[in-house]
Amino acid sequence: MEKDNFYMNLALKEAKKGRYQTWKNPMVGAVIVKNNHILATGYHHHYGQNHAERDAISKLTPEQLFNSTLYVTLEPCNHYGKQPPCSDLIIKSRIKRVVIAQVDPHKLVTGKGIAKLKNAGIQVTTGVLADEASELNKFYSYFYQHDFPWVAVKEATSLDNKVAIHGQRTPITNQAVYQQVHSERADYQAVMIGSTTAIIDNPILGTNIKSDYPPIRIIIDRRGRLLNHLHLNLLSDTNSTWIFTQNEQMAENCFNNPKIEVIHLETEKIQEVFNYLSKKGIQSVYVEGGPTLEKAIMNEIFVNEVIKYTAPIFLGDEGVTGLVPNETVHLTNIKRTILGDNERIAGELKHV
Amino acid sequence: MEKDNFYMNLALKEAKKGRYQTWKNPMVGAVIVKNNHILATGYHHHYGQNHAERDAISKLTPEQLFNSTLYVTLEPCNHYGKQPPCSDLIIKSRIKRVVIAQVDPHKLVTGKGIAKLKNAGIQVTTGVLADEASELNKFYSYFYQHDFPWVAVKEATSLDNKVAIHGQRTPITNQAVYQQVHSERADYQAVMIGSTTAIIDNPILGTNIKSDYPPIRIIIDRRGRLLNHLHLNLLSDTNSTWIFTQNEQMAENCFNNPKIEVIHLETEKIQEVFNYLSKKGIQSVYVEGGPTLEKAIMNEIFVNEVIKYTAPIFLGDEGVTGLVPNETVHLTNIKRTILGDNERIAGELKHV
Repeated sequence: MEKDNFYMNLALKEAKKGRYQTWKNPMVGAVIVKNNHILATGYHHHYGQNHAERDAISKLTPEQLFNSTLYVTLEPCNHYGKQPPCSDLIIKSRIKRVVIAQVDPHKLVTGKGIAKLKNAGIQVTTGVLADEASELNKFYSYFYQHDFPWVAVKEATSLDNKVAIHGQRTPITNQAVYQQVHSERADYQAVMIGSTTAIIDNPILGTNIKSDYPPIRIIIDRRGRLLNHLHLNLLSDTNSTWIFTQNEQMAENCFNNPKIEVIHLETEKIQEVFNYLSKKGIQSVYVEGGPTLEKAIMNEIFVNEVIKYTAPIFLGDEGVTGLVPNETVHLTNIKRTILGDNERIAGELKHV
Repeated sequence: MEKDNFYMNLALKEAKKGRYQTWKNPMVGAVIVKNNHILATGYHHHYGQNHAERDAISKLTPEQLFNSTLYVTLEPCNHYGKQPPCSDLIIKSRIKRVVIAQVDPHKLVTGKGIAKLKNAGIQVTTGVLADEASELNKFYSYFYQHDFPWVAVKEATSLDNKVAIHGQRTPITNQAVYQQVHSERADYQAVMIGSTTAIIDNPILGTNIKSDYPPIRIIIDRRGRLLNHLHLNLLSDTNSTWIFTQNEQMAENCFNNPKIEVIHLETEKIQEVFNYLSKKGIQSVYVEGGPTLEKAIMNEIFVNEVIKYTAPIFLGDEGVTGLVPNETVHLTNIKRTILGDNERIAGELKHV
């Protein structure tokens, strides 16, 4: 048992090497062991490339693989996706035992890989460091368990809960927060803002993390105000932007930019936006404001997490008030981080 | 120079032993040294008792004192207050050299003690660890430099800057904050609240620090609403409460409690309250709310510090909004402390 934990920990470390490049796939790591010797390690390097098991197995000869133990952080797949099933490869490799951390939450996979291995006479152990493995792919796991993205609502406010001076772009937080936001965006598959934030702040919503899969920028623009603001960064640069609108006239070709998609909304419900994102397989959304959009989201859909940055300033009566939900919201699993004279607090919502 | 710092540091440590008991007097420590040997230490133990110099000197014989060096954290006094002047005692003791950290900010004293010593042929060195000594008696120093108390505005809010649910006593912060507030109250000579807070929260405004001089509780009750709430803790227990009112009918005897003073206000200005406190020698005030009183104070008088506790909860639309000043207020010298899942932030105001 102690040995299993040791090797699985190593496999988790391997998995993390794929961070920011596996996109909609989970990070997965694998370690192959025989007679207390590590023969090979592997991980899922990049979306569309070899799975972790294949990456490790490919480094060994059939003789080495025979009777070995494979540690893998996620249940091996048993379906044809971008890659042939790993379960078949493991059986063919005559591996004796497979130790798994997390059972795959993906409905197409869960339990099937394990059943296949067992049917082939392979010893299977599950649940070794399962919590750590699940945490590693928190958004992936959540998405496939709930058919809905993990939604984080983020805001940056003064001590009097103001997000800006009315009508002005108002930088409140410090450089350390700027860096932190630019790195945490990379953890999400989409970032979302309202049209007012797009117009007043003219943000890029970029990240300082090198990744082939930067988050898709989403703008909620029901009235189609962006048609009068074609110069905005989000409408003219080369990353993907999705605009959700109820404006019948707005179409993709309005923007003369192939990276822009326009999605027409049929209702006033913010739920409709998130249902669309779910269908598109977007596993995680980082909502960056403004407060009107955040309030609608907090009140209408299942929000998982609030991340709030605060700066040591009061903006006073001239300030635009930040997020105030309809009702009391308790947070749990609180993480506070001091960033210079600013602070980050993150907490998950208690839902009943 | 290095030796001077060493002994002065020791004197500062001595001074701190008097914390919470010197009341309107500063904390002061003293060390007497001869031939690199520490002969005696002393400090001001308690308001009305011996000053630090006398406390140390009284432990030695005339032979020991002769030609010695006295380290003292504050300029020796030269006036008759509760005690005869320390300058005379030092001269009489035939001490050779006196090393002083802070020159006394008190107008009756400043520089005079030093002049007297020098005239008597004593070597005097000043400014050794002056900043540390000044910080030790920060409120005392401030009061005698500005003829006005140090004012700290404290509030406890949710993440959406709410202090309570409308009309209800609403505990927001955790036990660690409760303890911290109960200890920091003891640093101030007065704590202040508005009548709404007094009536809804019915607080004691107590401290968990043993002291013969707990802060005076001050209630701003312009309309005299407390006359209908005689059962409140602040009106019926045995600590001092001062009530500031514009109600002509309200008098001390209304409350049948000798610890209550009623002060009649002639204007709507909160300045009038603080002018009275200055005249009464109150060196520091800890304002605890509610937001209406705090806003008036922030806008009308010179506030030195804001202390804000936050809890990881949103109270939502039902909440009473916390302090929002009229204008932007920048804070400096920020201190953030994480208290479980709550946070304390303290910052001083930048005044131009």
